[in-house]
Amino acid sequence: MDEYFESYEELDIHQLMLSDKTRVLTYKNAIFNMKDEFQGKIVMDVGAGSGILSIFCAQVGAKKVYAVEASMLVKTIEQVLIENNIQNTVEIIHSKVEDIDPNSLEKVDIIISEWMGFYLVHEGMLDSVLFARDKFLQKDGLLFPSIAKLYASPCQLPSMYEFWDNVCGVSMRCIGKEYRKIKSMKPEVLLLNQDNLLAEGKLLAWLDLNCISIEELNLLGGDDYVSVCEKNGRYQGICIWFVVEFPDGSKLSTAPYDEATHWKQTAIVLPTDTKVIEKEPIAFKLELKKDTSNPRRYNIELNLLDAEEVEHDIPCNCHMTKCIVTKMYIENQANNESALSTE
Amino acid sequence: MDEYFESYEELDIHQLMLSDKTRVLTYKNAIFNMKDEFQGKIVMDVGAGSGILSIFCAQVGAKKVYAVEASMLVKTIEQVLIENNIQNTVEIIHSKVEDIDPNSLEKVDIIISEWMGFYLVHEGMLDSVLFARDKFLQKDGLLFPSIAKLYASPCQLPSMYEFWDNVCGVSMRCIGKEYRKIKSMKPEVLLLNQDNLLAEGKLLAWLDLNCISIEELNLLGGDDYVSVCEKNGRYQGICIWFVVEFPDGSKLSTAPYDEATHWKQTAIVLPTDTKVIEKEPIAFKLELKKDTSNPRRYNIELNLLDAEEVEHDIPCNCHMTKCIVTKMYIENQANNESALSTE
Repeated sequence: MDEYFESYEELDIHQLMLSDKTRVLTYKNAIFNMKDEFQGKIVMDVGAGSGILSIFCAQVGAKKVYAVEASMLVKTIEQVLIENNIQNTVEIIHSKVEDIDPNSLEKVDIIISEWMGFYLVHEGMLDSVLFARDKFLQKDGLLFPSIAKLYASPCQLPSMYEFWDNVCGVSMRCIGKEYRKIKSMKPEVLLLNQDNLLAEGKLLAWLDLNCISIEELNLLGGDDYVSVCEKNGRYQGICIWFVVEFPDGSKLSTAPYDEATHWKQTAIVLPTDTKVIEKEPIAFKLELKKDTSNPRRYNIELNLLDAEEVEHDIPCNCHMTKCIVTKMYIENQANNESALSTE
Repeated sequence: MDEYFESYEELDIHQLMLSDKTRVLTYKNAIFNMKDEFQGKIVMDVGAGSGILSIFCAQVGAKKVYAVEASMLVKTIEQVLIENNIQNTVEIIHSKVEDIDPNSLEKVDIIISEWMGFYLVHEGMLDSVLFARDKFLQKDGLLFPSIAKLYASPCQLPSMYEFWDNVCGVSMRCIGKEYRKIKSMKPEVLLLNQDNLLAEGKLLAWLDLNCISIEELNLLGGDDYVSVCEKNGRYQGICIWFVVEFPDGSKLSTAPYDEATHWKQTAIVLPTDTKVIEKEPIAFKLELKKDTSNPRRYNIELNLLDAEEVEHDIPCNCHMTKCIVTKMYIENQANNESALSTE
């Protein structure tokens, strides 16, 4: 664990995160939109980092903000607080949240945290946020964010495939093959163009942070999914992204069709690709399992399934006969019912 | 040295370099523009990497191309050659160029190499190219590229300064100060906007690869330079970039005002900045010294000088009285001469 806090001390990472305007401004707006909820309240910022979220909370009138940060960054936060003249409102707690004596602290009204890692949970610190919730949050206290959703969709990966077909007039398919062999061994963080999504995102996980338990984070996803292609293309990988939601309803999305963030997207690269056509079903099983030796890491397992052998959504838009028939049947039922109701 | 070849095996770096279209297409065009020079000739590609330059040479009709590559990438090049059906033209030599027995090889007509590192010489392999020139290039043989120039100019560094003044409404100047303290300790590779250059680039080094010796690479720059600000701004660092030129006259430039490349620019960050105004002279001494323990590395030394105490160019556009007077005197001389010649 110590290693983690060491690496996060690196100012470069904080520069990168503070430069991610989508990230910072979504938090800022979520806080400022709910100004009334913060006024006179006690807030805890779990993993305060540079302290920017604590400062936003102070700016909207929180009575007290506990900025919990385990790394040596606390020295920097201290200076930032003085620079912004809020050292009396924000109190730095130099500790992991797990190590704070629960009797030393009053309960808080709001917990705020930017805990998300790549594909939501990689090197993230949701466990610590839930720990803080259980130990320090008032009954009916607020969490910022309060909901997290994880999505996946089959996709094209041109930098892994097409790129190697023609590099300024030279065919380098054999390098591409080797490249994909390496890249398919672990999740690849990259920016995808929304045109490269083949289908709508399937919801892998919907985490209500108000009530989910730490144990429930051991396995995310794990179902069989059937995505229906929205266009002709090539099935070259699975794209994973997440969205978190705040109590005011605002969202921070890392989807390929939303503004890019420093989280980008994560792709599971397939070593070989397949041609797919519009309305074709793509079936897969995807699970993210918490690593037993390092709870801040997840192992991702992707299984490609036969679309003939798994259950599809009902109704399903795919071109398989059973789904066309089911869909027609449902539509007829609906028509009959509406016909009956108009008689 | 072994470490270097290991790290270059990483396919990711080659993907990055092959994705740099400015880089690849400038080489390709320089070769294709001089097609006639390649036809029936013998070429050596020093540090062939993915083999793409060797393939371009074969495509324009070289009789033989020696692709010299020390890393395990040779296995990949072999496959690429077969894929492009030129395995008979390109011969892979799995060796450092320094280790090739000179008697085992005929002299070559052309040496091509993409040897440039960050700020031209960092982790570059110009020494190897000059070694190859001395051992293997015919008298009057061609070098691609044949000239390399290194430039520097005072600049603004907004990501090091202004960024911290206002991070989404929060003042973080104290972090900026710490950040610059760290960043000023070694050269920083970053992309600068041309608006952030304060003056024209000063030529630190002009290397004619046809005749320069390896010893002459021990020290680049080392003079006193006086840059004249072209606008009001803040002097926050020195920006370094390079340009290489090919025998057909084409150029590969990494200047902030040219198309971005994977080399970006390199900045020497000043820990504190100074306000400057248009026509103000900025004097500095900048030298790049080859590291005695690792000849592929350079130590950069920047000294800020007092513009009053160093010699300026003649004429100089700066606002200092001596330069205004000198410039007027020269212009008068020129007017008198042209008046005389019209009489």
